[in-house]
Amino acid sequence: MLSQAVIAFLDSRRDKHVRQLIELLRFPSISADPAREGDCLDCARWLADRLAAMGFDAQLLPWRSHPVLVARRNCQRPGAATVILYGHYDVQPADPLELWESPPFEPAVREGAVYARGASDDKGQLLANIHAVEALLHTDGGLPANVLFLLEGEEEIGSPEFESFLTAHADLLRADHAVITDAEFFAPGVPAITTGLRGLAYFEITVTGPGRDLHSGLYGGAAVNPLNALAAIVAGMRDEAGRVTLPGFYDDVVEPAEAERQAWARLPFDEAAFEAGMGAPAAGGERGLPLLDRLWARPTLDCHGITGGYQGPGAKTVIPSAATAKVSMRLVPDQRPEQVAEGLRQYLIAHTPAGVRAEATCLTAARPVLIPPDSPAISAASAGLTEAFGAAPAFVRMGASVPITELIQRILGIDPIVTGYALPDDNLHSPNEHFQLAQFHRGAVATAAMLSRLGGGEG
Amino acid sequence: MLSQAVIAFLDSRRDKHVRQLIELLRFPSISADPAREGDCLDCARWLADRLAAMGFDAQLLPWRSHPVLVARRNCQRPGAATVILYGHYDVQPADPLELWESPPFEPAVREGAVYARGASDDKGQLLANIHAVEALLHTDGGLPANVLFLLEGEEEIGSPEFESFLTAHADLLRADHAVITDAEFFAPGVPAITTGLRGLAYFEITVTGPGRDLHSGLYGGAAVNPLNALAAIVAGMRDEAGRVTLPGFYDDVVEPAEAERQAWARLPFDEAAFEAGMGAPAAGGERGLPLLDRLWARPTLDCHGITGGYQGPGAKTVIPSAATAKVSMRLVPDQRPEQVAEGLRQYLIAHTPAGVRAEATCLTAARPVLIPPDSPAISAASAGLTEAFGAAPAFVRMGASVPITELIQRILGIDPIVTGYALPDDNLHSPNEHFQLAQFHRGAVATAAMLSRLGGGEG
Repeated sequence: MLSQAVIAFLDSRRDKHVRQLIELLRFPSISADPAREGDCLDCARWLADRLAAMGFDAQLLPWRSHPVLVARRNCQRPGAATVILYGHYDVQPADPLELWESPPFEPAVREGAVYARGASDDKGQLLANIHAVEALLHTDGGLPANVLFLLEGEEEIGSPEFESFLTAHADLLRADHAVITDAEFFAPGVPAITTGLRGLAYFEITVTGPGRDLHSGLYGGAAVNPLNALAAIVAGMRDEAGRVTLPGFYDDVVEPAEAERQAWARLPFDEAAFEAGMGAPAAGGERGLPLLDRLWARPTLDCHGITGGYQGPGAKTVIPSAATAKVSMRLVPDQRPEQVAEGLRQYLIAHTPAGVRAEATCLTAARPVLIPPDSPAISAASAGLTEAFGAAPAFVRMGASVPITELIQRILGIDPIVTGYALPDDNLHSPNEHFQLAQFHRGAVATAAMLSRLGGGEG
Repeated sequence: MLSQAVIAFLDSRRDKHVRQLIELLRFPSISADPAREGDCLDCARWLADRLAAMGFDAQLLPWRSHPVLVARRNCQRPGAATVILYGHYDVQPADPLELWESPPFEPAVREGAVYARGASDDKGQLLANIHAVEALLHTDGGLPANVLFLLEGEEEIGSPEFESFLTAHADLLRADHAVITDAEFFAPGVPAITTGLRGLAYFEITVTGPGRDLHSGLYGGAAVNPLNALAAIVAGMRDEAGRVTLPGFYDDVVEPAEAERQAWARLPFDEAAFEAGMGAPAAGGERGLPLLDRLWARPTLDCHGITGGYQGPGAKTVIPSAATAKVSMRLVPDQRPEQVAEGLRQYLIAHTPAGVRAEATCLTAARPVLIPPDSPAISAASAGLTEAFGAAPAFVRMGASVPITELIQRILGIDPIVTGYALPDDNLHSPNEHFQLAQFHRGAVATAAMLSRLGGGEG
């Protein structure tokens, strides 16, 4: 059980904590944008200073591009466990900017929530963890575990350098448990622990044709248009039934266990509310499968952008010399990004029309993950969440990819506890992203409760 | 025969004429870009001032958006014909800017050509006409015809308001002949008269889906992705053989006469050089048809741009709420843009997947044109071109659309003489557009020679 003093401390600091959150959200730490590199660094420094002030040995470790913040403070209890608290300080790009009701990097509090890019994904959540530790430090019991903050700056671009980072720093990061608070509740009032995540294979496909942009009147009927070719390539990657057509794509897909499927069917999942949140019917994915299967247990293919030709106002009659599409696949166990890339390579050979060339570059990749739901660590986390939120967590999978999960599992040898305090309608990755302040405050209590149970050792 | 005095006058002014051309090319008169409205107006005013200084009654007639410049000066000969000299002072957008060797609106002379957006399309050509008239005015004979400059500012956006303009000003524009110098040579040394032009139907197709941008991990497999849907819609508009699949699309296509096809086969057309100019094999259009047929006598479909989702650097895993494609069809006699729009409407009803909506807006349209090649006016123009360039013109068609051609034919009741001094490798609509100065100077001689023959009346 968590001491009342911790809860009281957190309650007494709510206003201060919101001010800190607003300060943290002002950094436009968009990892995808090279122009924001300085902002990412400023954001990481702000966090390092805060943790250092709390007595942590905070190191900002440069690693190829955006630095990783590692901060450790050990507790007084002999034999206590070491717990990694993972978060990421980088955020998604904010466009389309015109759809934000308040600017994405000028945090605004409205109706009990703070609106800003990164509010729930993931700055609000990592800051709740910092507040949890601060509260534990300020109360009699002190830290119940050795705490190791691991805050990265490339999660939103797929953590491309994190594997090599973890490998190089495995000694520094030796730990017993890892808590990843980058996920969300299953529904308001229903916390969740994620036991599976989809992987990701994200490609840029470029079709190259004429040596220069051409006039469609003078060359239309002669030139093979790279944009038309690219549209056909993207369109042909899925069939009429919504299945991906890349060679071998489904070969390694593992069906979920029947017990897991049955548990999903019992979840309080409101399909109508889900569709209302999307603002569209859930008619995507493979035809004929249940929605949760399509979201959690089946791979997908989505196009994220097509560039080439003219995108300004009015009519320009151009046949562009080249066109590029961003396309990604969400993967499920036991698909592997490398195998998908090979399937795409074969597909492009077979489906690129004469007169143009096509090539694909993998921008980011992550393997899918499964985490055994019956470990002592998961039980401890489950009890902590139950204590903080008054409701037992649902065991769910997640359609999104958090590459760090698979990397912690594979490289550090820890089955991570994947949970989080965001709500499903927080507009992650969309305009008007926000984080409910009630979740922010109660999330700190939950992290403290989990740490108390995970610490072990001699109290 | 043209007097030697006219030729001598033009020869003596070459440097001055190039300086004037450079001045004219500095105006970034991009009609597609609302931000350039002032630049378009400045460009039109510059031309009006020049013509007024030459004794023309020059009127800048406001008409909905960009004004039309109409300038008349009658000659002294009783019964002389009135000849319209058509040109357009607007230009295509200049992007992609990074591919220009010198900035598009800072004209640069290199190796006998001037490089700038609009150099050959159409500012260099209309200025050659002005110089031709100036030369005729400065020599003893004076103007051989009543000359009516008709210079519009919306050709590059498809002359959307020109039909109503011509209708409203039909009295002012009463004329016997019209010369449109907005076309090009068939090959270096081979002038051309165009007897057919393709029409155009240019659409913006918008697919709307989710109420907001969505995270492709959290919603992939549930949401219907507007970009994927749009790619399939665009791809499905042509079949494997390169034929357009819109209902009824080919119903009204008229095959060229056998004699015309035979004349094309005799043209000095170098397919390898054409492909070298494109920098790609001429593998587009309908499979199995001769290249000149595909360029001149067959309709096409090209995509000019697809907007939606993320187009910045790196990876953003977004399912966009909407996506838009610019798509146009080149039309041949007797296709009608309205019928194509109706076919597209039916196609979208049949091919839009459940879960998204699609709609098409026609941005610009032009009917295809045929001009009888055996009129006295065409004979006079042919003789003038032969005199100026020392080679008889080829009778060709053009794949591009010059809506004004059809409008002059239909509304003013004149079969226009469509010719021009650009060369096929002048990079019209592309980066590094240029105009050969030799063509610029000799073009003025040619216009003067045509006017001398078209004037008639009592010399």
